[in-house]
Amino acid sequence: MKLSVGIDIGGTNTAFGLVDENGKIYAQGSVKTQTHERVEDYANEVFRQIMQAAAQIAEKPCDIVGVGIGAPNGNYYNGCIENAANLRWKGKVEIAAMFKKLFGKPVFLTNDANAAAIGEMVYGAAKGMKNFIEITLGTGLGSGIVVNGQLLYGHDGFAGEVGHIIVKPDGRDCGCGRKGCLETYVSATGVVRTATELLATRNIDSELRRIPNSELTALMVSQAAGRGDAIACEVFERTGAVLGRALADVTTITSPEAFIIFGGLAKAGDILLEPTRRHMEQNMLNMFKNKVKIIPSQLSDDAAILGASALVWNELSDKNENDNTNTELLNI
Amino acid sequence: MKLSVGIDIGGTNTAFGLVDENGKIYAQGSVKTQTHERVEDYANEVFRQIMQAAAQIAEKPCDIVGVGIGAPNGNYYNGCIENAANLRWKGKVEIAAMFKKLFGKPVFLTNDANAAAIGEMVYGAAKGMKNFIEITLGTGLGSGIVVNGQLLYGHDGFAGEVGHIIVKPDGRDCGCGRKGCLETYVSATGVVRTATELLATRNIDSELRRIPNSELTALMVSQAAGRGDAIACEVFERTGAVLGRALADVTTITSPEAFIIFGGLAKAGDILLEPTRRHMEQNMLNMFKNKVKIIPSQLSDDAAILGASALVWNELSDKNENDNTNTELLNI
Repeated sequence: MKLSVGIDIGGTNTAFGLVDENGKIYAQGSVKTQTHERVEDYANEVFRQIMQAAAQIAEKPCDIVGVGIGAPNGNYYNGCIENAANLRWKGKVEIAAMFKKLFGKPVFLTNDANAAAIGEMVYGAAKGMKNFIEITLGTGLGSGIVVNGQLLYGHDGFAGEVGHIIVKPDGRDCGCGRKGCLETYVSATGVVRTATELLATRNIDSELRRIPNSELTALMVSQAAGRGDAIACEVFERTGAVLGRALADVTTITSPEAFIIFGGLAKAGDILLEPTRRHMEQNMLNMFKNKVKIIPSQLSDDAAILGASALVWNELSDKNENDNTNTELLNI
Repeated sequence: MKLSVGIDIGGTNTAFGLVDENGKIYAQGSVKTQTHERVEDYANEVFRQIMQAAAQIAEKPCDIVGVGIGAPNGNYYNGCIENAANLRWKGKVEIAAMFKKLFGKPVFLTNDANAAAIGEMVYGAAKGMKNFIEITLGTGLGSGIVVNGQLLYGHDGFAGEVGHIIVKPDGRDCGCGRKGCLETYVSATGVVRTATELLATRNIDSELRRIPNSELTALMVSQAAGRGDAIACEVFERTGAVLGRALADVTTITSPEAFIIFGGLAKAGDILLEPTRRHMEQNMLNMFKNKVKIIPSQLSDDAAILGASALVWNELSDKNENDNTNTELLNI
């Protein structure tokens, strides 16, 4: 049985899975991303856990054909993670080369949001779409932009950093070293920051006041909003306003058919999506009004793993197509 | 001799030219855009003038291989001009179909900024580039985004409206009906508005104070800046700040190799480009710092015609590449 390894490197957790060509996951697991100071130790740990998981698979033999990695600032062109704001390893990390050495198989890297976009196109809400943007809401805000059926990599491989457009000059401190980036307002951490801000500026009661700041999570805020807590509701109104305005701007540049919202925060559902749609339309250039959908991802929690693993099948099938073409030419 | 027809439809004039593959114009002319109430009569008149001009070309025989049209709100996908604010023909105008009937040749339509981008790639400063953005600075701000050697059209054909990203919520009134669009600050009219604003807020002398507001032009402001007029200099410092910040944001989304600045205002040269570069770098996400060029266009005043005609060569060469592949296969 042929399997590809999908690895999703997040700021907090690294999830992995062994996946067949139809998207069936045979084994999976996760590793804390930040426990190892040296990235080599981290890679060894991830490799060890994946091989352990592979050993548990009942169906034998398992043939690992390649490894797909989604990682923040993962560069498809050179296989490096470069200066990722949410990871402790600074500079240029040759992650694809490390895993290639460990697995002895082809390794394909892209950023986590691009991997999710591929997964969405193959298995999810973007089936049949040629122009859409995947927005991933986790610790930060990632994006994968698909243009004419292909990922937009740009000149250096790093296109699609929608989370770092500046929505408020001199706004909130961002992990990237600048201020006012979209992801400081629209992300799980952004929601907690907005809640904290509103607890200071509003003089009304809220269940959020009974939770220590260090324990407050976006999930708690969305649950409180679901119960009608006024401050929690205002948090999502504000989050939707910032995101909606940004998506209107992104539309004027790229004109997608849809934005597909994925990630932990996306589970807030219409608590987040309704104000986002409303503010996007309010701020939309006339020619794009009522054309662009905002829809929740149809991928499971394993989307990032599936997307990363799909990268392998995708690359190998491209290669096979070329090989076939050559073979045909030679046969003629 | 093979020639393509380039037609640039502007609000006032329609310019046309017969152009060879190297960008040499063999004949050109213009027609008033607004004289004919019926667009069919206008198209007939343009066709008649072009055939007259073609008849004057000394080199024989002339073989017109196709027609490229750049027009406001020109939609590449359906060949229609849709709801162009500055044209008298309202609604959806099937301009490509009309010219196709008249010329009996392939007709390609896109908007004026996209046409300029193609012209820049075929004849100008973007030769050899695969990822760049053409910024056209005239009455408004237009943009043509090239990704992987192809224009970014998006889902509905209207991608690339960088002039309408909102840089200041509740900012200056824009012709699009919204407020704070980039082009209300960065364009010939934007420069005049900034000058007018500074004449009110600053309490220092300026040669601009001796020009009536209705007569003030961006050229006058740039000439005053060239002479060291303090207010005029501040106008371009501010214009560069707004443009530089916007280009930093556009870079995070599309990661281009260069921005190429075209149009009347671009003639201000380093008076505009120096502060633009400085503010772009100050606001740039680390991974893109010192990577993205801002360079002036290398196209002449005939750029609009050249761009429109280049659309034909570009389309036909794409087609030929495919045809050649097929031919090779058949020959084997």
